[in-house]
This record gives sequence, C-alpha cells and structure tokens, in this order.
Amino acid sequence: MNAKSGTPKKNLMFFSGRAHPELAEEVAKHLNVSITPQSAYDFANGEIFVRFEESVRGCDAFVIQSHSEPINKWVMEQLLMVDALKRASAKRITVIMPFYPYARQDKKHKGREPISARLVADLFKTAGADRIMTVDLHTAQIQGFFDGPVDHLFAQTLLSRYVKETYGSDNVTVVSPDAGRTKLAEKWADDLGGVPIAFIHKTRDPLRPNEVVANRVVGEVRDRLCVVIDDMVDTGGTIAKAVDQLLAEGAGDVVVAASHPVLSGPAPERLSECGAKEVVFTNTLPIPDEKRFPKMTVLSIAPLLARAIQEVFEDGSVTSLFDGNA
Amino acid sequence: MNAKSGTPKKNLMFFSGRAHPELAEEVAKHLNVSITPQSAYDFANGEIFVRFEESVRGCDAFVIQSHSEPINKWVMEQLLMVDALKRASAKRITVIMPFYPYARQDKKHKGREPISARLVADLFKTAGADRIMTVDLHTAQIQGFFDGPVDHLFAQTLLSRYVKETYGSDNVTVVSPDAGRTKLAEKWADDLGGVPIAFIHKTRDPLRPNEVVANRVVGEVRDRLCVVIDDMVDTGGTIAKAVDQLLAEGAGDVVVAASHPVLSGPAPERLSECGAKEVVFTNTLPIPDEKRFPKMTVLSIAPLLARAIQEVFEDGSVTSLFDGNA
Amino acid sequence: MNAKSGTPKKNLMFFSGRAHPELAEEVAKHLNVSITPQSAYDFANGEIFVRFEESVRGCDAFVIQSHSEPINKWVMEQLLMVDALKRASAKRITVIMPFYPYARQDKKHKGREPISARLVADLFKTAGADRIMTVDLHTAQIQGFFDGPVDHLFAQTLLSRYVKETYGSDNVTVVSPDAGRTKLAEKWADDLGGVPIAFIHKTRDPLRPNEVVANRVVGEVRDRLCVVIDDMVDTGGTIAKAVDQLLAEGAGDVVVAASHPVLSGPAPERLSECGAKEVVFTNTLPIPDEKRFPKMTVLSIAPLLARAIQEVFEDGSVTSLFDGNA
Amino acid sequence: MNAKSGTPKKNLMFFSGRAHPELAEEVAKHLNVSITPQSAYDFANGEIFVRFEESVRGCDAFVIQSHSEPINKWVMEQLLMVDALKRASAKRITVIMPFYPYARQDKKHKGREPISARLVADLFKTAGADRIMTVDLHTAQIQGFFDGPVDHLFAQTLLSRYVKETYGSDNVTVVSPDAGRTKLAEKWADDLGGVPIAFIHKTRDPLRPNEVVANRVVGEVRDRLCVVIDDMVDTGGTIAKAVDQLLAEGAGDVVVAASHPVLSGPAPERLSECGAKEVVFTNTLPIPDEKRFPKMTVLSIAPLLARAIQEVFEDGSVTSLFDGNA
Amino acid sequence: MNAKSGTPKKNLMFFSGRAHPELAEEVAKHLNVSITPQSAYDFANGEIFVRFEESVRGCDAFVIQSHSEPINKWVMEQLLMVDALKRASAKRITVIMPFYPYARQDKKHKGREPISARLVADLFKTAGADRIMTVDLHTAQIQGFFDGPVDHLFAQTLLSRYVKETYGSDNVTVVSPDAGRTKLAEKWADDLGGVPIAFIHKTRDPLRPNEVVANRVVGEVRDRLCVVIDDMVDTGGTIAKAVDQLLAEGAGDVVVAASHPVLSGPAPERLSECGAKEVVFTNTLPIPDEKRFPKMTVLSIAPLLARAIQEVFEDGSVTSLFDGNA
Amino acid sequence: MNAKSGTPKKNLMFFSGRAHPELAEEVAKHLNVSITPQSAYDFANGEIFVRFEESVRGCDAFVIQSHSEPINKWVMEQLLMVDALKRASAKRITVIMPFYPYARQDKKHKGREPISARLVADLFKTAGADRIMTVDLHTAQIQGFFDGPVDHLFAQTLLSRYVKETYGSDNVTVVSPDAGRTKLAEKWADDLGGVPIAFIHKTRDPLRPNEVVANRVVGEVRDRLCVVIDDMVDTGGTIAKAVDQLLAEGAGDVVVAASHPVLSGPAPERLSECGAKEVVFTNTLPIPDEKRFPKMTVLSIAPLLARAIQEVFEDGSVTSLFDGNA
Repeated sequence: MNAKSGTPKKNLMFFSGRAHPELAEEVAKHLNVSITPQSAYDFANGEIFVRFEESVRGCDAFVIQSHSEPINKWVMEQLLMVDALKRASAKRITVIMPFYPYARQDKKHKGREPISARLVADLFKTAGADRIMTVDLHTAQIQGFFDGPVDHLFAQTLLSRYVKETYGSDNVTVVSPDAGRTKLAEKWADDLGGVPIAFIHKTRDPLRPNEVVANRVVGEVRDRLCVVIDDMVDTGGTIAKAVDQLLAEGAGDVVVAASHPVLSGPAPERLSECGAKEVVFTNTLPIPDEKRFPKMTVLSIAPLLARAIQEVFEDGSVTSLFDGNA
Repeated sequence: MNAKSGTPKKNLMFFSGRAHPELAEEVAKHLNVSITPQSAYDFANGEIFVRFEESVRGCDAFVIQSHSEPINKWVMEQLLMVDALKRASAKRITVIMPFYPYARQDKKHKGREPISARLVADLFKTAGADRIMTVDLHTAQIQGFFDGPVDHLFAQTLLSRYVKETYGSDNVTVVSPDAGRTKLAEKWADDLGGVPIAFIHKTRDPLRPNEVVANRVVGEVRDRLCVVIDDMVDTGGTIAKAVDQLLAEGAGDVVVAASHPVLSGPAPERLSECGAKEVVFTNTLPIPDEKRFPKMTVLSIAPLLARAIQEVFEDGSVTSLFDGNA
Repeated sequence: MNAKSGTPKKNLMFFSGRAHPELAEEVAKHLNVSITPQSAYDFANGEIFVRFEESVRGCDAFVIQSHSEPINKWVMEQLLMVDALKRASAKRITVIMPFYPYARQDKKHKGREPISARLVADLFKTAGADRIMTVDLHTAQIQGFFDGPVDHLFAQTLLSRYVKETYGSDNVTVVSPDAGRTKLAEKWADDLGGVPIAFIHKTRDPLRPNEVVANRVVGEVRDRLCVVIDDMVDTGGTIAKAVDQLLAEGAGDVVVAASHPVLSGPAPERLSECGAKEVVFTNTLPIPDEKRFPKMTVLSIAPLLARAIQEVFEDGSVTSLFDGNA
Repeated sequence: MNAKSGTPKKNLMFFSGRAHPELAEEVAKHLNVSITPQSAYDFANGEIFVRFEESVRGCDAFVIQSHSEPINKWVMEQLLMVDALKRASAKRITVIMPFYPYARQDKKHKGREPISARLVADLFKTAGADRIMTVDLHTAQIQGFFDGPVDHLFAQTLLSRYVKETYGSDNVTVVSPDAGRTKLAEKWADDLGGVPIAFIHKTRDPLRPNEVVANRVVGEVRDRLCVVIDDMVDTGGTIAKAVDQLLAEGAGDVVVAASHPVLSGPAPERLSECGAKEVVFTNTLPIPDEKRFPKMTVLSIAPLLARAIQEVFEDGSVTSLFDGNA
Repeated sequence: MNAKSGTPKKNLMFFSGRAHPELAEEVAKHLNVSITPQSAYDFANGEIFVRFEESVRGCDAFVIQSHSEPINKWVMEQLLMVDALKRASAKRITVIMPFYPYARQDKKHKGREPISARLVADLFKTAGADRIMTVDLHTAQIQGFFDGPVDHLFAQTLLSRYVKETYGSDNVTVVSPDAGRTKLAEKWADDLGGVPIAFIHKTRDPLRPNEVVANRVVGEVRDRLCVVIDDMVDTGGTIAKAVDQLLAEGAGDVVVAASHPVLSGPAPERLSECGAKEVVFTNTLPIPDEKRFPKMTVLSIAPLLARAIQEVFEDGSVTSLFDGNA
Repeated sequence: MNAKSGTPKKNLMFFSGRAHPELAEEVAKHLNVSITPQSAYDFANGEIFVRFEESVRGCDAFVIQSHSEPINKWVMEQLLMVDALKRASAKRITVIMPFYPYARQDKKHKGREPISARLVADLFKTAGADRIMTVDLHTAQIQGFFDGPVDHLFAQTLLSRYVKETYGSDNVTVVSPDAGRTKLAEKWADDLGGVPIAFIHKTRDPLRPNEVVANRVVGEVRDRLCVVIDDMVDTGGTIAKAVDQLLAEGAGDVVVAASHPVLSGPAPERLSECGAKEVVFTNTLPIPDEKRFPKMTVLSIAPLLARAIQEVFEDGSVTSLFDGNA
C-alpha cells in the first residue's frame, strides 16, 4: 500500500481583530459560527501579541478588522493575525476590511508621496493574505492594487434602498459634495430611478491654488430633497458646508448618506448641527456612543458580509448578490 | 593588488518600437541622441523579432512605444525589447508609454473581468522594466499598479495653455462629456482661471439599465464657449453627441480638447462633422493622414518627454516640470 | 460551534480563446463539457475585453488558445482570460497552448536578442497560470522555462502511427530537413521500427557565413520512401527544397509529416507544388480552407488533449498516455 | 452541461532520500504506507538523478532526508526530489529534515559570512517546498527563516523522559556545556521537575580572544548526577571536556543527552572514553555500526515523526503532540 | 551620436520619522548633513501622510525611526516613507532601526503565534528597503530574517567600556537576569577582561508550569560588584527582582546596563527604587523627562550610527568599526 | 547642506571556490588582480564555512567555481559565497561556471523527473546572483533558465582553431557521436571551412527500446580525418565506441575534441586506449595528473574568461569577442 487516501474536508473559521467586536459578533451570528477564541493583547511598549486557542490547520480563514482609530495599530494587528494563520497552516486566508485603510492615498497627488493604498495591499499579500473582501472602496481601482481576488461589496445599495423607502424619489436630487464624486452620484441617481444630479464646484484663485475661493452648486436643487452622498465622512467639513449651501440655495430638505462613518474630531458636532434632516451610515466602522446623535441612522452591513463569506466558502457567486454588478 | 578600480560612466540610450517612429525621432532630436539601431521585423506567422545592433551593456535605457492599433502587437514588441535589454545587461530600463494601453480597464466593472491595466504593469515588471513614464493616465490610480517609480507627465497643461491663448477664458465653460470626468473638468477650470464647469448626465431607465434614456446638461452653457475635455477620444461618439447637445442647448461655440487621439473607426468623420469649432490633441499616438481633418490641431508632446527623460537620466526632478504637481 | 464544515467539490471548467473555436469545440465534446460562455470582443482600438458569463469561483480552469496569426493578439487574449480567472477566484488555472508561441526564439542566437519563449512562460506565470499544457515543443527545454508543471504531449506518435499504417516501414528512411532536427528523426526512426535516417547538411562559405552554398544529403535515400519530418512548417521553404533534393537524388517517394501547420504566406503553394506524395499535419493550429490542398492530411489532436485534461483533473497520470515517456 | 464535477481525494505519499533509509522505513511502517518507489542514483561525475516510479499528481507529499555526511549531496538530492514533485504536480510538498542542515550558521558571527541556515530555507522554498518539518532546531529562530509553515518537533521530551525513568531526578543537576545552551538546560530542569542547573563558563584572555584560558563550572555539581545536555554532538570535544571537568569537580556521575548524533571524526572515541556513564541520542541521523559504542543509547524519533505527519495530513494539530508547546 | 554619457554622482540623503527627532538631529550633525525636509502629519482618523520637500531621485537614502510607543504608528510611518522614496526613484534605501520592533517575537513560543520579527523584515522589504541598519538585536538570528544586507551595530561595547572606566573590573561579576541571556553575559565578561559570570535560574513547579516558584542565583556574587546586563529593559520587573535578590545574597553593589530603554509603565519607578547604584542605557529610544531619574546614565549612540552610515555610503567597512566582529 | 555628495567608484573583486584553484589563479593573472583572500573550510560533518578577509562592500564581484566531483559540494560552496557577498553588500554578483552543473538534465526525459539545470539557475538567483557567465552550454536553451543576463562564451572556437592549425581541413569530416550533436557538428564544419559531416545513428529494437542494437555511421568517413566532437566527455564510452567504429569503417585518422573534460571513472583509460590520434580539451574542469595521458592536449580557457570579465566590468561588449555571435 503505497499511498494513504482520505477525503478532504473544508472548515470555515472566523477570526476577529479587536477594533470592532460588535460587528464581528453580528457577522458570526449571521454565519452561525463562533469567533475563534484567541489571546490578543498589547505588551507594555505597544507591541501586539496574538495566539489562536484552537488548531487552524487546513481551515478556510476569514479575518475581519475594522480600521478605525488607532488605525495603524489595527492594521498591524490584522497583519500579525494573517502571519500567525499562515505559519499555522491555514489553507486559505481572506482578509476582510469593511473600510479599506489609507484608501484616500490611492495615488500620488504630488511628487514624493507614497501610494499608501497600494502599500497596504502589498503588506497583506506579504503577510500571507490570499484574498481581500472590502466594502465601497474610495476608488474602485484599489481592487487592482492587490495581486489576487478582491471581493468588492456594495453598501450603497443598502443606503439607497433605505433612502428610497423613507423618502420616495419623486422630488430627489442626488448631490455630490465635490466634483470627484459625481460618478458616484450618477450611480445613486440610477438606483433611485433616474433622478437628477448636482455637485458642488469648488473654484480656486489661480494665484492661490491651495485655497478654495467659492463653492458653486451646479445643477437643480431648489425645492428639492437633496441627498448628499459620499463614500465616507471623516471630519464632516465638506459635507456640512454642502448642506448649508444647498439650504441657502433653496433646497427643500437635505439628507446625508455615506457608507463609512469615520467621524473624526468635530464630525459629530458638525453633522448634528448642520441643517440635514437625517444622516445615514452603515456600521463598517465602530461608532462609540459619544459620537452618536439623534438624526443619525446606522444600517448594519453584517448580513451582507455574512452572505458574501458564505458564497466565498461554498464557491458560490458574490457577483450574484449584486445582480451581476460586483 | 586585490581589486581593480575604475570610475563608472552612465550612458543614456534611446530605443523605439515601430509603432510611431515620428514621435521617437522628434524626442531623440530634442534629447540630442540617436535612436539605437535595431533589427525588428515580423516572422511570417506574426512573431516579432528584435535585436539591437550595438552593445547596451550598462546603459540607462529608455524604450518608447506608442500603443496604437494593432495594440497587442506593439505591447508585445515593447515587452520583447525590454527582455532583450535585461538579458543584454542594460543597467536600468525605463518604459515610455505616452498612451498607457488598456488604461480604461482599470477595475472590474462587473464580476469575472480582468483588470487589464494592472496586468499590463505586471507584464512589463516581469519582462524587466525598472520604471515607467507615461502621459495623462485615464485614472491616476494606475500609477499604483506598477511596483516601482512611475513618472506621470501631464499633457493637459499643454492643451489648456493652447486653449487659453487661442480663446481666452472669459466666456468659457469647461464641460465633462460624462459624470466620470467632472474632476478632470475641475482641473481644467482651475488652469483656465476659475471658470465654471458643466457635465452631461446620462440617465438610465431602471428597468433597462444598459440603455441611456436621456442626456441632461448639468451646468451653465448658454452663449458660452464650451470646452469639452477628455483624456482620450476613441470612436468619438460620446464627444460628438456632447457637442451636438451643447449647441442645441444654446452654447456659443464648442472646442474639443483631449490628450490621446485614439481615433478609431468613425471618429475622424464624427469629429469633423459635429459642430465643434476646433479639436485639439497631442501626438501621443500616431495620426495617419487619412484620419486628419481641417479643424484638427495637434500639439507635440515630444519636448515634454525629452525634458522628462533628461531629468530622469540626470537624477534631476520631474516634479519640477509641473510646478510640484507630478 | 466554532467552525463550519463542508465537503469540497471540484469542477472542471473549460474556456476557449477566439483563435481556433473548432478545436476547442472538439475537445469539449470529447470531454463531455460545454465551453464556458463568455463575452470576448475587441474595442475599436484593438484592446480586448473578456468577461465570463458564469461564476468560476473555485473551479479547475482549463483555458485553450491556438496561437496562430495574429499571434500577439491571441497571446494577450489568453493572458487577459487568465487574469480574469485569477481575480474571479478560480482554484487552479491550466493554460493550454497546442502550439507554444515564440518557441523558436528559445535562446539568444546572437547577442542582444530576447529569449522570447522564456518571456512567454513568465508572462503567463505573472498573469496567474498554475500549469501549462502544450504539444510537441520546438525544443523540450522550453518545459524548464515555466516555473511549475508543464504537461508536454506528443503528437508525433499520432503522426508516426499514421505513416506506418499508410506506408509500412520496410523501405522508409526518415529525413531531417536540417542538422538540428536529426535527434527528432532518430525518435521517428525508433517509432517506425529501427529504420535508417538521413539529413540535409547546409554548408556555408566561411567568407559569407549567412549564405548557404550547398545542401548535401547525408545518408541513404535512393529508391527509398523518404519521410521528411519537422515540428512545424512555417513558410515551407526548407521543407520544399528538401523534397526536391531528395527526389533529385533518387528518392522513391517523399512524405512530409509535421505537428504544427503554421503555413504562413507561400507555404500552401510550396507544399502543394513540391513533389511530395502526401503532407500530414495535426490541427494544433487552424487551417483555413484557402490554405488546404489535395495532398494535405490533417489528424485531430483533440482526443489527446481531452484525455490529458481528464487525467489532470482527476489526478491521474499524463505520463501513462505515452507509455511513460512524457 | 457546462462543468464537470467530482469529489477531490487526498493522498499521502511518502518519499525518502538515500541518506538514512532505516529511519524512513521505520516512519513508513508507523504511518502504514510504503515509501514511493523511485530511481535515484549518481552519474559518474556525481550529479544526482531521481525519478519517481508512480504518478504523484495531486498527492500530499512528505519527503524525508537525514542530513548526515556528505551533507551537501543529501541537500541537493532533497532539492531535486522537491523540484521533481513540483513539476509532476504534487499538490503540497512537506520537506522533513530531522536534523536541519547548516543550523549552526544561523547568523553572521563576524562580517562577510553567509547566513547558511537562511539560505537553506530559501533554497527549499525555491525548489518548491510548501512546508518544513524538523526536530530540535539549534535555535528556534530558524523557524522564521522559512516563508511558510514550519512544524518544529521536540525530541527533548523523549530524552528527558528516558533520563527521568532511568535515573530519577532527585539528585540531578542539568549542565549546559557552554553559556549558550543555558536556556535549554533550564527547559530540561523544568522537564525533570525543577532541578538545579549549572553551566561551563569558558573565559578568554582579552589579549588572545580566540583562545579559551579556563573553564569554570558555574553552579552546584558536587556529588550530584550531572546530565550534560545539548542539541547535537559533532566532534564531541566540548562535551568530553565538560564531562571530565564535572568529574574533576566532584560530580557523582555524568550522563550525556543530545538529540542529534552528528558524531564526526573523533566523536565516538571521545565519548566512549570520557567518564560518562551513558550517552543518549535519538536517530535523527544515521549512526553506522563503527560509530556505536557500549554506553550509547539510541531512542527512535520515528513514532513522533509519523504522528506529526499524520496530523499534518489530516489537518489535525501538531501542537497537541506537545501539550500546546509546539 | 547614439548615446549620451555622463559621470554618475552619489548623494547621501538623511530622512527621519517623527518618533525621536533628537537622535536624528544628533546623527545628522555628526554626519554633517541636514535632515531632508518633509511634510509628515496625521489625518484626523490617524492615517499618516508624508511628502518629501526636495527631489530624492537617485539618492542614497538613510531613513531613521526609533520604534517607541505608539510603536505600530512609527512602523507604519517608516514603511510609508520607504514607499515614497521607492516611488520617487531613490537609488538605494537603508532603513535604520536603532531598536528593532517586535524583536522579542522572533519565534513561535507555542503554536499559532506569528513570528513578528520576520514579518517586520518582510514588510520593509516589500515597501522597498534595500538594507537594514540596527543596534543590539534581541537575538542575532534576526539578521537572517531580512533578505538583504543587515548592518548589525553593537552598543554593548559602548556600555561595557563605560562600566569598565567607571568601576574597573577587578571585583566584577556579570549577571544575566535569566538563563536566556547567559551568552550575552559571557560576551560582557570577555569585554571586561575575563571576569566571572552568574545568572538567575527561575524554577517552576512541574504541576503549575506557568508559575515561577523560586529564583536561584547560580554563580558567585557575594561581596562582588554585580553588573546586571540585558539588551532592553521594558517594564523593569525582572531586572528589579534580580537586583533585589543579588543584594539579598550579599552582592557588594549592583549596576544595571542595557542598550534599549523601552521603559514602559512602572519601569522608571522600579529601577529608581530597586537598590541599583546606577542604571546605564543608550539613547536608541527616546526617554522623555518624566521617565528619567537620578541614577540613570544615558550614552549616545549617535556617533556610532553616523560612522556606520558614512562607511555604508562610501563603500567602506562597518565590520572594521568593531574590530572585525560585525 | 542637505545632502552629501561624492563620486562613485567601481571595484572589480575576484573570488574563487576551492574546486579548481589553478584556473582561478590563471584568470586572475590575466586580469591583473589577486583572488580575494577568504577562509573556506569544511566542518567535521561536511558543512562548508566561508568568510572573506576583506571588505567587499560595493564591489563588482566575480565568483568562479569549476563544477567537478564532488559536484554538489562545489555547488553549495558557490551558493554560500554568493549569499555571503549579498549580505556583505556587494553591488553586483556574477557567478562564473565554466562547466554548468547538471546541464544534461535540462528537460524531463520522462515524467516525474526534475529539470535540474533550471533548478541550479533558480538556486543561484535565490542566493543572490545577478548574472551568470558560462562556457559551451550542453544546450543553449539553458541561458533561458536564468532570470537575468547570461554571458555564454564559446570555447569551441578555441578547439576548432587548434584542429585547423594542426591538421588543416582538406580531408576532414566532422563527426557527431550521436544524432543529438549533429547541429554542433554543423557549426564545427562551418568553422573548418565547409567540410562534410557525419554522425553515428544508434538504432533500437522497438521491442526493447532501452537497448541499442546497432550503430550506423551516416555520412562519408572512409580515408578521411574524422574529428569527433562533443561538448563534454564524461565516462568516454560513447566517444571511444565512435572512434572504434569510424576506424572500422575505414577512417584515415580520428581526433577527438570536446570542451569539458569531465573524465569520470574509466574515461582516461578508454580515451587513451581507443585508436584516437589526439584528444583535445579545455581546462574548464580540473584534470588531475592521474587522469592525464600522452595523447591528451589541454587548451586554456583562462584568457577568454579574463577578457569576458574585463568587458563585463567595463560595460564593454562580450558579443564582440565572438564576432557578434554571443
């Protein structure tokens, strides 16, 4: 008897970094698995230690981390988890980043800058990631930064469906807060059934190019329900100004919708105090209680992540979750 | 005497594929070098053969190719040239692609598509390219597809300066032919001194998503000089329709400006017959005589390429050619 | 419940480029599968687009392309298909190249040439190919150019069996059309049962080394049935001359047998008009009707390809198809 | 029918180099498999040839080699076996090196030296190894030299259990033969139930730094059973001197225990003639009859290797074999 | 004129992360260069941005960062700087890490852990580092984790020279605070002229293996000046206990010497309040004022770093700085 | 002052393994350099140690080794030298292998064999080799196995010139000892001015394919001076039989010429006792005195190697040494 035969099994194991345990728990519940127990703590000098408490040999590993502040720590923690999985003989490692870190630095804006989003992709590849799953990338080209499969999920559908159900679409104009998001606005407009779009044009004085001299609203907004959209809200400055200006130019009402609630520093205050009727996010990033305010609505991304993980594990189709558009 | 010492020299050598010899010659003249003589021909079954007629050992090689039709042939020729240079001990190989091939396929629009622009970057890396020099990328993120330095030159400055000198900027509106180029329009508007912008919004029937049901001009165009901009013009359909619609909505005059004259199939006829007053390109791609028409203006990119090559060779600064913006 | 278990399945999926659909269909039929539906077309400027119409996640992908004219286009199409499969999470990708492109440029004949056959192997590796399957390589060393498994199938057996059945082997001399194919002739001679071999020696004037001054037939050919063999016939010049010379030196009859019908330019006419009694090929490359002529016989390689694919899919043995000689 | 489905199987196949067939046979017996038949021989000039006699397509390959003298030959043979397995489509390749070659050169002791242990890891990676299994590494950091999973098995447990059963632990002092192995001695002391440890301090004259001027025993050894431990015994000089000195300083009895019996040159004579009561090894390396002597005890590592291979094949846990310490 | 010739120049440029500007300034002063001006700041969500203010094309770049708390942030900042240098065409990039981050996780202590120190090496390689310069690695094997040249500098010489000059060496015993540093103690003993060594043996109850039951001092310490040595002091617990125990066992005086002042949490208080006469560090890491205490002495590593950088830049010898021992 | 400038120098340093010191010395003398002093010795268990005695930082390193028996040892020694050079910051490393080891295993002759010649190329690449220089490869395709420049030198010219000067070419027939070397014979025939060629055809019984049943001389040899050529002579069996048969078929005289004197086992006796008038080799491999015999002539390859090294160092042209044919 020369060889020893057997039938391979496949095991889905689910791992979570420490940044956003609530989301991980919710995804696990939808998947009907437990998060694999692990030791993860910081040494006194900030170095992170991780060890998994169960054998991961041969498993199909899915490792989720939400990249909120302190973002570099959570990136390193996820890298260390991937390294540990690789060395412990996981069969396949899928890195789940609901919010892709450093996505805004996806090109050199001027000379001698890093392309940080590419670097992030390469770091995970080096650590041992086979695949990446992420949600609403700042630019879709980031998919091409990773040398392997990227499952790019769309939370925008979740948001636009909510907006449509809540407000209808008869009187809506979708507004991009700057020229760079007009394409995204166009997709929203299609989702809402072919409504008009507008955007805010920031003009600069050619003699002082780093200074915006005026914002012009380009497109029809008077007496309409303006839905200001974006992929993320960080400090909220651009969005809050857009809301103010739309109201100043006669908009009926303004709703803000964005996938990623980065919500740094003054963002909660700005959003809460601008004239928006409602601000809608998903929970790709944790929103601590002190950053929540009455007009904020948070839709859960967990069911979508769980369905996508299930499809990946079973060699099904992620594309099919989005009617062929992913 | 244990070691043998010497002072290294560096030699700039310039190589050209067969796609666009006029541009290569013009660059060479500006650089004050000759194109390195080579044998390059096709075998009977289409396989390409190249051999350099002079030693390239230790040289700083710059290899230009314009990726016009038959584009796959010219890609393969440039790959073979790079392989030959690598194996012949060139010290450093810079691939110059004035028009980056497959730039439009820079992401998966739907599932199960290639990301061809990333593949192109990887193919050149594999063949032995150390660096890439290119002009007006379809999206700047493509820089991040290459694992090494990319010198991204801007021909837009050339075009906008010409437009400003020819038409002034008092009455200009910069028009993006679709929502995805609005950011580019904004940059043009800044170049021209803070003029307004507009764009064409294509709406779709949600029940027939692949069909455009209407084009709306968003922004002020009546009685203004509309400058319709884009990075490339391929078949010219979108551009020609945009021109028509702008004129229909009362635009004073329309000028078209784009960096890359791909000009496939019906493009010359469409551009020639639409109501545009002038159509401005650069010569990143060859324009055969039969594709030229009276209203076409072609600005040469050769001086810019030559200056950039010179800076790279001498460890100068390419960024400085664009006032710190490259 | 920590993990979620399942039993993996494996799926053979078969993909075809657009170069030689007849061969792909024939292989699919022998395999009893359908070719996976795809969109594949050329953009106006020659850039190729591909998208698969069904989920390929987790599949064992076999991608066939015949590298005929325009050969660089078909190479790029197959590279794009492999990239799309990789990014769509195919589990394993086997590239099938019945005729290996650029196989003749498998070394530098002189300095400053590419080694194109190695480059081709590296390009496919970079795109994501895990394995290569090919037929009758110009030189067997090309197997070593790919960093992974290469299944090298032998069509020669098919040809030699046909010749033996048709002509017997009593009076046969196997003739190599030049000195470089003598080893191949020896293998044929073994297949035919130990018959004699001969070759054509091209002599050169040392003062004009690129010019052949005379062809000498080395070996016994008078009154014998000469089987002139080669791996491919491109323009047919060498083969046609060999046939003429053999007849001039008294050969009884001449049969030509080669695996790959490249058949560029004047080849059909030359072969048809030289004195060969029969010319035998396989269908590794498409032969359009206008290149066919009465004395041509084409044997199908499809059953062999299908059997090999089946063995690879089932972890069987490809070597066993050739009595341990592959 | 688009795709062709099946259920994958997995096959454990076991391969052995020619260095230590007895160990391989013993492991195979414990695993209940046969060693895969192969041709392996040396060409007249020392080049090694290997060919496997059975199909290995899709197998889970385990390749054992013991790296005894001539060590470079056995390294190369194992590399060639891995290359052959990779090219023959083995699914996964685990290299088993019971004694890791070049483990002592795991850092640069001075400038301009190789880090040979890292080079060895890289060579096996390059040849195609997916994983490494090894026993009692000279330093545990060597695990980190390989870019992939390393199963590091502990033979020390085997040795310490034997010593405890044979001699009890009441009166034992564990002795490190030099300062660098004190940590290992501490682990032994823990295994034996918290016994004291000691080490030999070699002092050097600062003016003649390469010369040891005196050995001092640091720690309590008088009238105690001293167990001198090490990972390997090469020429036996250090160990034999340690034994002598311990006896000179009043040790009751001395037992030597080490995992790897390198036993070069004078080692058998030195060990046999020093005053040690017993010398205990494992059989990670072959010990030819002429190197054996009466006081030598050899414990078999084969059951441990077989259990570890079984766990790896079945996606079980190797860590569990060592109470979570591997 | 085919080629354009020139004489290459080489430029040393020095870059500093934001973790320890004082050390960088001091090194720059010794080198007689300025730190290259850069923009480096944190976005609101913690993402780091860097841009160099001067052209770095073709330079020989040296990038220093001290990996203190928040350590993951400083690792990421240095990675981003390397990426920016690579993409801006620096000729060679040397990463200077006076304290190598994650050095203690240089192996798997148990199963399913990362080997973080190897991961760090790979991350820097991926970002574009050509070489690493570091000081007193936790284990010298970490050199082998990087695939390229590592200049490993020794601060220990600095410390031992200071101790010798301050205290003489007549009555000194070098003490390792645990068994794992005994080899380091031996090197110190050699530096001090052949003095005795001792170490603290932590014994464990075999039934409760994670609990240390007793510390034994092994070696002669009574009435001697004990120099407790280590590569780093993190929380100071082990060191403070060692000092206490040595004094309890009759040591004359105790001096502590370690290269890297990590000094987390309670370390300053513990060191200040244990009975050590003096505590000596280098400035590889920043020591904020609130962590300083009267008995602390800090020696500067800057002159050594500057000399090593100079040697690297001039293709001199770093080994020669340590009498052939580096 | 931001940067520190300097003019780079380049230093040729020459290194030699221990296999064939005479050849290395001769090359060094022609180059007018000394071999860099090194420590290189074997540990007791056969592990090799190397250390260079001088700084190699920034040098252009040329490392020669002749791959004679024990061939695996010499391969490993050269790999270790390359690793040491890489880690010691050599700027460029050229591996010189006058006889390429494992060149005959350049393809899989049957299934489940390694492609050892490709493996060798990959091992050297992994160790850090930038370039390879070698002489008269068994097949020229091996150049393509290395991912980088290969300088392939031709010793055949040396041999053919000697033969022509010694014997003239009027009455010469060049004879290939088997069908696979006929192409080489053709090149010799061209070198000698267009003389005839012949080869020995080994026929096999189809029922016993591994057994040669008869050798037939194909071509004219009666009364002619037969020059039997090959790239190497290993055990000499094929060559000696060829000589006998040629004499039996009436050859006037027989001379044997081959580049590489492997000369294993019975080769000296066989060559000495066969009827050859003279046997001509180069000294790419060492020929110990006991293998020499009166009719043997050895031409030195050292001047050619030295000239090629000089051209590589000075960025000259190696191709030019062979009239454009390398």
